[in-house]
Amino acid sequence: MNWDLLLTNASLATFVGEASHGLLTDAAIACQDGRIVWLGAMRDLPSASAATAVEVHDLDGALVTPGLIDCHTHLVFGGDRAQEFDLRLNGASYEEIARAGGGIVSTVRATRHASEDELFAQSLPRARSLLADGVTTLEVKSGYGLELESERRMLRVARRLGEALGIHVQTSFLGLHAIPPEYKDRRDDYVSLVCDELLPPLANEGLVDAVDAFCEGIGFTRAETERVFEHARLLGLRVKLHAEQLSDLDGAALVAEYGGLSADHLEYLSDSGIQAMARAGTVAVLLPGAFYALRETKLPPIDALRSHGVPMAIATDCNPGTSPLLSLRLAANMACTLFRLTPEEALRGITVNAARALGLSDRGTLAAGKRADLVVWNARQPAELCYWIGGGLVRQVWIGGMPK
Amino acid sequence: MNWDLLLTNASLATFVGEASHGLLTDAAIACQDGRIVWLGAMRDLPSASAATAVEVHDLDGALVTPGLIDCHTHLVFGGDRAQEFDLRLNGASYEEIARAGGGIVSTVRATRHASEDELFAQSLPRARSLLADGVTTLEVKSGYGLELESERRMLRVARRLGEALGIHVQTSFLGLHAIPPEYKDRRDDYVSLVCDELLPPLANEGLVDAVDAFCEGIGFTRAETERVFEHARLLGLRVKLHAEQLSDLDGAALVAEYGGLSADHLEYLSDSGIQAMARAGTVAVLLPGAFYALRETKLPPIDALRSHGVPMAIATDCNPGTSPLLSLRLAANMACTLFRLTPEEALRGITVNAARALGLSDRGTLAAGKRADLVVWNARQPAELCYWIGGGLVRQVWIGGMPK
Ligand SMILES: [Zn+2]
Ligand SMILES: [Zn+2]
Repeated sequence: MNWDLLLTNASLATFVGEASHGLLTDAAIACQDGRIVWLGAMRDLPSASAATAVEVHDLDGALVTPGLIDCHTHLVFGGDRAQEFDLRLNGASYEEIARAGGGIVSTVRATRHASEDELFAQSLPRARSLLADGVTTLEVKSGYGLELESERRMLRVARRLGEALGIHVQTSFLGLHAIPPEYKDRRDDYVSLVCDELLPPLANEGLVDAVDAFCEGIGFTRAETERVFEHARLLGLRVKLHAEQLSDLDGAALVAEYGGLSADHLEYLSDSGIQAMARAGTVAVLLPGAFYALRETKLPPIDALRSHGVPMAIATDCNPGTSPLLSLRLAANMACTLFRLTPEEALRGITVNAARALGLSDRGTLAAGKRADLVVWNARQPAELCYWIGGGLVRQVWIGGMPK
Repeated sequence: MNWDLLLTNASLATFVGEASHGLLTDAAIACQDGRIVWLGAMRDLPSASAATAVEVHDLDGALVTPGLIDCHTHLVFGGDRAQEFDLRLNGASYEEIARAGGGIVSTVRATRHASEDELFAQSLPRARSLLADGVTTLEVKSGYGLELESERRMLRVARRLGEALGIHVQTSFLGLHAIPPEYKDRRDDYVSLVCDELLPPLANEGLVDAVDAFCEGIGFTRAETERVFEHARLLGLRVKLHAEQLSDLDGAALVAEYGGLSADHLEYLSDSGIQAMARAGTVAVLLPGAFYALRETKLPPIDALRSHGVPMAIATDCNPGTSPLLSLRLAANMACTLFRLTPEEALRGITVNAARALGLSDRGTLAAGKRADLVVWNARQPAELCYWIGGGLVRQVWIGGMPK
């Protein structure tokens, strides 16, 4: 064995097993060729291997977790909505904001008008912020282009962000995000466009890892969602869904029926929806940033998700309108503070369960054979990562065994 | 003139005047010997001075604000309370947490047991986090020692943090923070100790810039608070107060009566308290981090503070129990999101009004003669600083004209 990297005297939050963060104290972890190859107690460390390791760090008890996984973002977009935020806090009504060009339409306009390089330049600092906070795998959705060229541009920028930062980017096609202005009175035509003209070429170009939709009173109906899910199935793509955020349209059951990866938001999720998710193994992705920013009061049914064994993930939902949130660790704090998740649930929600929400089985835990995506923290106990609100706790990050 | 520093093509949020952030676009600002010496429109920039400036940065429209001021923190302490956070989210009652050694008593114990160097080492990353977020002036309270040596150690560490980071630290003596265990049944004796044995020597040693107290049902009575305020007055020290956080003890009126700098928290502030503050010019320091972390629902009376013209400041209240918040910009976002302050109010609350809450007239605005404490942001509009939740928006910081 020739280990590339060895971290000694570490506290490893492995998230293997069901309890206590899978914590191994007085432990070491070794990586080779981008994978974890050994981990265990210091006293069991094979001395021959340790002696020949290329890079060795004595962590003096510091905490190591898997690289964090932000499994739901919209972080590629043009412009921002700070002015709208300002107007609203100065008492403007939604109508006044719409008249001032606000709302999602303004983001669609800015995204359509941005060149690929502009979109990349605007999105890069957001991805950097997430990485600085320990995120090594990032999902990015399309959905502010709503026509072929702009949707393609968004997805290409998402891929470029991954290449530029050396992080893994997983893309979701979200054509059914909003009805674009030019289809205002032709909903069906827009859904057809998405199914027939947008999704197939983008999928063929390798730009789509999964298909998402916004199933909501102010979004798309269950029937419209099902149309795009059918096309996803034909293309062999997994689905996920913005479901039950503001009302119960039974979207979670629909995504479960399609063997979906995740149903996301879920404040208005019903018991039957939970049961369907539990049967299908669909992950519940909770997005406390939007709950916080919108000052929602209806909590997702955490206890019922727990008792039915539905895995819970947490994500930033980073987007310009309802969750301009640039820290996944802060999302975890909000999940604890606002949704009353335990720190362990919140941390599993940004590691192992987030990996599952993206259909990725090669990461999210610390175990031999998994990717060497590691974060060393300026912390000793896992709960500290949820406890501190803001601040930079990351000491060092490796992605696929490469230092960041 | 020999300018040390010149920033050109800037958007200057000066916070001079009452409206629109005092914003000057297409502007420049010049500093010399640690002070701002000139600012104005680019077209009015004296070309001779500009040509000889030692250091020139073309900001291409980036936003510049005064250095941020965090006017209420408890960031010097031993240990943390992450385990207590974890226990509580796992369903432990307050009694169980107390039995497990939790609560403020645990922080007092850890602070008393820490050496000065240990306390410094533990507090430094917290001060660094605030600085990384644009804070150049920081208030730090004592109050976890509750006996002479430990209170002195806390205040000395506060001063050392300022020296180590080159930031300005303002100290407040908070002997009346909690009754220490050894005085459990001798409240009066403890108040006497604070007034006679703790405050005078610490003030004489130059460790105390102001005197604070925790006036609350679970803290100290109005009469006890008044005793320490009397001693502060004799020593020529300004006062401030933790007031009306969980109930109305009429503390704000008391601090106003003593010409106090600020009354802080204020969720239960009465109309008469507001009127007293308005008359005395006492600043209302709002602490949304504690409101958020404690999931409070009673909002401070923002509208009444506005209509009476009471200046509002915002601070992190950084402390291990009720607000482990390490970002002042995030406190400003919370003030907007949870308290419905406008971004302009929130930003004045972490600049000009925060300076006033500390009795500092040489900072908090961008104007000739003020300290050259400047932050250049990766943003163009002031509202962006409140809009983004988390993330690193600071591009560059100067404190007293020195680059950080
Ligand atoms: Zn979303
Ligand atoms: Zn406080």
